[in-house]
Amino acid sequence: MTKTSGSGDPSLQAYIAKRSALIAQDRARRVDYGKEYSSIEEDADLIVRKIRAEEDVSVWGQGEESTSIYRPNGDAPRLFPGMEFLTAKLAPSNWESVPPEFKPFPKAYSTTATSLTDDDYTPGDFVPILKARETFSSCIGVGGPQGFDQWVVDSLMIRPSEAYDQFDTSTKIWRKFRAIFEVSASLVYYRPIWLEYIRQFFTTSIEDGISYIEARINFRQQLMWDADGELNVPHRQWLVDFNTVMNEVRSSHPDDFVGARVIYTTIRFVSAEELEWYLEDCMQLKQEFPDLIAGFDLVGHEDSLKPLVDYIQPLTRFVERQKELGLDIPFIFHAGETCGDGSKADMNLYDAILLGTKRIGHGFSLVKHPKLMEICRTEGIAVEVCPISNEILRLTSSMPMHPLPVLLNQGVPVVLSSDDPAIFGNMGLTYDFFQVLVASEVNGLVTLGEIAQDSIKYSTLSEADKNTALALWKRKWRKFLSTIVEEHRSILGTDSN
Amino acid sequence: MTKTSGSGDPSLQAYIAKRSALIAQDRARRVDYGKEYSSIEEDADLIVRKIRAEEDVSVWGQGEESTSIYRPNGDAPRLFPGMEFLTAKLAPSNWESVPPEFKPFPKAYSTTATSLTDDDYTPGDFVPILKARETFSSCIGVGGPQGFDQWVVDSLMIRPSEAYDQFDTSTKIWRKFRAIFEVSASLVYYRPIWLEYIRQFFTTSIEDGISYIEARINFRQQLMWDADGELNVPHRQWLVDFNTVMNEVRSSHPDDFVGARVIYTTIRFVSAEELEWYLEDCMQLKQEFPDLIAGFDLVGHEDSLKPLVDYIQPLTRFVERQKELGLDIPFIFHAGETCGDGSKADMNLYDAILLGTKRIGHGFSLVKHPKLMEICRTEGIAVEVCPISNEILRLTSSMPMHPLPVLLNQGVPVVLSSDDPAIFGNMGLTYDFFQVLVASEVNGLVTLGEIAQDSIKYSTLSEADKNTALALWKRKWRKFLSTIVEEHRSILGTDSN
Repeated sequence: MTKTSGSGDPSLQAYIAKRSALIAQDRARRVDYGKEYSSIEEDADLIVRKIRAEEDVSVWGQGEESTSIYRPNGDAPRLFPGMEFLTAKLAPSNWESVPPEFKPFPKAYSTTATSLTDDDYTPGDFVPILKARETFSSCIGVGGPQGFDQWVVDSLMIRPSEAYDQFDTSTKIWRKFRAIFEVSASLVYYRPIWLEYIRQFFTTSIEDGISYIEARINFRQQLMWDADGELNVPHRQWLVDFNTVMNEVRSSHPDDFVGARVIYTTIRFVSAEELEWYLEDCMQLKQEFPDLIAGFDLVGHEDSLKPLVDYIQPLTRFVERQKELGLDIPFIFHAGETCGDGSKADMNLYDAILLGTKRIGHGFSLVKHPKLMEICRTEGIAVEVCPISNEILRLTSSMPMHPLPVLLNQGVPVVLSSDDPAIFGNMGLTYDFFQVLVASEVNGLVTLGEIAQDSIKYSTLSEADKNTALALWKRKWRKFLSTIVEEHRSILGTDSN
Repeated sequence: MTKTSGSGDPSLQAYIAKRSALIAQDRARRVDYGKEYSSIEEDADLIVRKIRAEEDVSVWGQGEESTSIYRPNGDAPRLFPGMEFLTAKLAPSNWESVPPEFKPFPKAYSTTATSLTDDDYTPGDFVPILKARETFSSCIGVGGPQGFDQWVVDSLMIRPSEAYDQFDTSTKIWRKFRAIFEVSASLVYYRPIWLEYIRQFFTTSIEDGISYIEARINFRQQLMWDADGELNVPHRQWLVDFNTVMNEVRSSHPDDFVGARVIYTTIRFVSAEELEWYLEDCMQLKQEFPDLIAGFDLVGHEDSLKPLVDYIQPLTRFVERQKELGLDIPFIFHAGETCGDGSKADMNLYDAILLGTKRIGHGFSLVKHPKLMEICRTEGIAVEVCPISNEILRLTSSMPMHPLPVLLNQGVPVVLSSDDPAIFGNMGLTYDFFQVLVASEVNGLVTLGEIAQDSIKYSTLSEADKNTALALWKRKWRKFLSTIVEEHRSILGTDSN
């Protein structure tokens, strides 16, 4: 048990008791559960667990390059417990290109630097972006504006070679993933870009046939840069802008776009005290924009940052405060985005459910939890499955190995999400739906239709708005079906397998 | 449904009906199940399924190198539905070294060839093995006897680079896997080697702490070579030899070795008529060696060879014939050794269970089947999980991604198997137990103890013999625990996580 502050707190103790009971139910069917073991068996078992935990660092280096005894050809192999049996796969030497750093400045700011790639460039100097693009030199691959654009795009996306060769473990690819957010923050949180980014997010979604969205926005950074380069745009303005753009897009696409809501997120490395600030901020925004705030979540690399159980007290107080204020902001937690079995991230699933999460983001390891899957099924907790993200971020090697069929066959409600389409390149949802279709002989077009409808049914929309959205969806669905049948009627007549 | 011969057979129809009912139960909780769909929805769904099946060949080439439209850098990428999203991973060009071919000959056979590597060697000529080894030239890597041995060992084992780079899909690695059996058959089925092979199999197992074994022996080849080079040793003699060696080893290891039994196997490409020959042969051997024959199985690449449903009639007749003869030869079927979802190999699980299988070999895709897991749990059908085999044969990339925790948490009985230790290098069972231990924070030493005991409990031994074997096991277990606690007592005193 990770120690949390105020462990003498009776409500925390009650929570811990409830949590232990749920874990016991979930593990009830295990062969090593529910029976008495001799004290020597218990001691030996405990010894082995401690040795394993210690070797996790000393031998396996928790998956990082480590000073391991095993170094074929002098290169540090990628090591982790349960790694490929035959021998360690040699990790290619890490090449991380120098990424760009962007920053908005007030007009008054002056700089003499005119090129990033001149011999006299001083690292750390900022160059006006248009000048930097124009003078970008070919000593770094392709030059000029084309080379600059490529360099910037590379720093904002994950390349195949990065996902599958260089950073081919969850830990390594998250380093690249985090690096991307560091570059993009200064672009996306610059108000002129923010407005355009939101607009393109909506229009590309509509082009892909998406009619309603609940998008996670990260509010960790307390202020955004305004057009004048001043870092002074507060969170409420971000939502005013979001709302303005959404209304414009909605009125120009009345038959295609129902709208969008925001899931307020911050990062799971904040302290419990800092979290209280964000929870309070979320409630204030909910009071000002009741139809815009859909829920609350904590994001970031689950395997290495704080688990939900570290935040029980502020999260529980959040639920109570909402009752006082007459608000309804459901938790919509990331949980179980991991290959771990009994790891902190795997255990997040218990806490997400105990905290009353409305949906579960990823829930990749949920399939190992019979009781939790039963609860999700009976209480209607949908899992936001992200097939392509799970594969790019190396939880699974490919779609045939993805555990989604376990959820579908257990009757756990499933919805699909592209997770980070700008980074992965899977804009819209078609790519993710495609992966789900082609990697199975059980799933069919009708399966995809059910999953799409469930994304409306398990949204935070009111019942009335759900019905409206579903009616719109069904109209388009019938049209889509007619197109397929008209264009491919001849296939129906051919022999089935 | 694959067509089977005699489809007018009422018992077959009854079987098919039972099978369809079981599939329906297993899929009952799916979101796309148990509801009425409009005819246009059904038509469109069917059309998409047919297109998917067709593209499986035309675009994906069923995972083989294919004449795909997508050829970066002129190399054929490894393609399969649900492959890595970003772009196809370039498949390295296939290098398959020329493997050796062995063949026993009668002493009278003469050959003039003295070296495999001389310029005047004619491909296809056989060279006496000791001469070939002595004259082996360094033009193929290291030379002389050392080079020869390396070449032979390489042809009998899977190298890391083969599993993880060259043949990094299930289909490709099975080609190498099959090639190995072609080389080893002429060695293992040569009686002097057979006797020594069986002996080493037992002694290496005993060294690893294994006390009882049920080993699959492939009886596809009807005759073995005798020491005089004549191909005339019938199946019964294979078992006489097995029994002789087993008794010798058992009497020299009375406290360590309970014994071994044989699961009669043949390959799942035989016709239904050929299968009847093998089933009859199995029954004859059971009558002569009642304590040696443990069960019957069909082996081979499940994804590409015949599914169990193609053999329902001979298999069902086998069960009836046994009743007539007063025999008891349980099926112990390979089933579900696949990533497929609804594929033939995945569907083998239904048939294995309907045919009354006592255990399931691999059962890798069993985790997708709620109803089947329930049956395995309630009816005591243990799954022979092969962690390292599954990883080397590319069903999973590594142990953290292996679905074993799903089975354990569902209470499905689990036993471990090394599958093909001579090929994979995971002699004994320690390596497989280790993978299970280190890739989880829930499993502990006590878990492994339960799994080991289950391998006796779910064996084909009589109750009396199980008790004897378990008593022996528990004695060794207590000694093992004492050793751990004595040597590592200090660890117990340190802070827990």
